[in-house]
Amino acid sequence: MKVGVFDSGVGGLTVAKSLIEHKLFDEIIYFGDTARVPYGTKDAKTIIKYSLEALEFLKSFDIDMLIVACNTASAHALEELRKNASFEVFGVIEPGVLAAVNRLKNQNSSILILGTKATINSGQYEKLLRQNGYNNLISLNPSLFVPIVEEGLFEGEVLQSAMKYYFKDVKQSLDAVILGCTHFPLIAKAIQNYFPKSVLIHSGDAIVEYLEAKCHIKRSNNKTSLKLLASDNVKTLQSTADLWLKN
Amino acid sequence: MKVGVFDSGVGGLTVAKSLIEHKLFDEIIYFGDTARVPYGTKDAKTIIKYSLEALEFLKSFDIDMLIVACNTASAHALEELRKNASFEVFGVIEPGVLAAVNRLKNQNSSILILGTKATINSGQYEKLLRQNGYNNLISLNPSLFVPIVEEGLFEGEVLQSAMKYYFKDVKQSLDAVILGCTHFPLIAKAIQNYFPKSVLIHSGDAIVEYLEAKCHIKRSNNKTSLKLLASDNVKTLQSTADLWLKN
Repeated sequence: MKVGVFDSGVGGLTVAKSLIEHKLFDEIIYFGDTARVPYGTKDAKTIIKYSLEALEFLKSFDIDMLIVACNTASAHALEELRKNASFEVFGVIEPGVLAAVNRLKNQNSSILILGTKATINSGQYEKLLRQNGYNNLISLNPSLFVPIVEEGLFEGEVLQSAMKYYFKDVKQSLDAVILGCTHFPLIAKAIQNYFPKSVLIHSGDAIVEYLEAKCHIKRSNNKTSLKLLASDNVKTLQSTADLWLKN
Repeated sequence: MKVGVFDSGVGGLTVAKSLIEHKLFDEIIYFGDTARVPYGTKDAKTIIKYSLEALEFLKSFDIDMLIVACNTASAHALEELRKNASFEVFGVIEPGVLAAVNRLKNQNSSILILGTKATINSGQYEKLLRQNGYNNLISLNPSLFVPIVEEGLFEGEVLQSAMKYYFKDVKQSLDAVILGCTHFPLIAKAIQNYFPKSVLIHSGDAIVEYLEAKCHIKRSNNKTSLKLLASDNVKTLQSTADLWLKN
């Protein structure tokens, strides 16, 4: 089975990594819209337009399914993408919420949702969590986390001072943190240290769980092949993949 | 005289601010390509393509001159823009170099060039400074400065830790710092505190000096009118302008 993985840039590689590790597909066609990244600071209309263009591009590779790795595009463009595709299209938000619900039996659990400006403004995570009875929610857009990750500063003083800045009003005893942006798993260790008692929800692991449970996709014994495509220079995407996908 | 000011996003407002303060034009048509910002992390080919599209868009406003406020677009697309325009097109790099040369009589002066990845990789500042006999140069891409400025963190711990990180190998006794990105004037005070002896070169002031000296543009007594246009939602640009352009 050939799956398209669409992301605004390099971040979706953390989702591709989970898919590869769990051998859910024969082939992944990864498209990063690196010429127009980031989506997270942009308007819903622009995000939908770019996502639909990515869909058309990926259709030419005869994909059997599309996974929208980008939380921002998942939050705003999923419905439009589904309307325009003849195959199934999955985002990462519903899987992320289900992963949280599966791990937090107590509906009073406190949950911190981290995402881009556009993801947080969409209110999608909050809406789905409330539908599941979880109302103790805090939503935050720690907008410097994405460039900090892209700079490779997965630890150290810059990240620490940014965490201190964004988390200053958040209790460290939270029950869960939703890493609602594909970049955030790369600083999961630092976030975990900051919130030592919290369960961390990772979009990549969440979509794997979701596909296995809901779509009954079985693990294969074959290694997943990965094709990388970018709207800008593919070299940056390739070198990020070399770095992030290694074990 | 009606001038087009083109930038990848909101940053060019620091250049527009200088033009407004010095009353060089009757009208500024500012276009920020906010739907595709930032340019600084992108390929030369992509930067040229986007810049030419911005030129075509601005032509429809009957501008008499174009100022490319964005250092990244100035570094990569100026030649192509000039080929495709019937009016004069100015970038900010040559003006920035001239401003530095005018302030640093000693050719042994040490100069730190700060810019985006694409600006630094172009080598344009270095090339022009060397042509003027200045060879004691350090080029740096402090890529977190742009998002830090966009987050409004013009001072404080996050900015301090980022400066410490990027400047760790740079002597604090530098003679000059070229703020080779339109965002950097907003953290000029912090940079000046870090390099107390340095002359700071600001693209906006540099282009004003350049236009007055080279094009003999005279100051007017009229207030400059400013029209803001964006490829994404213009509201963000407008609210940034309200914040940055106030005195």
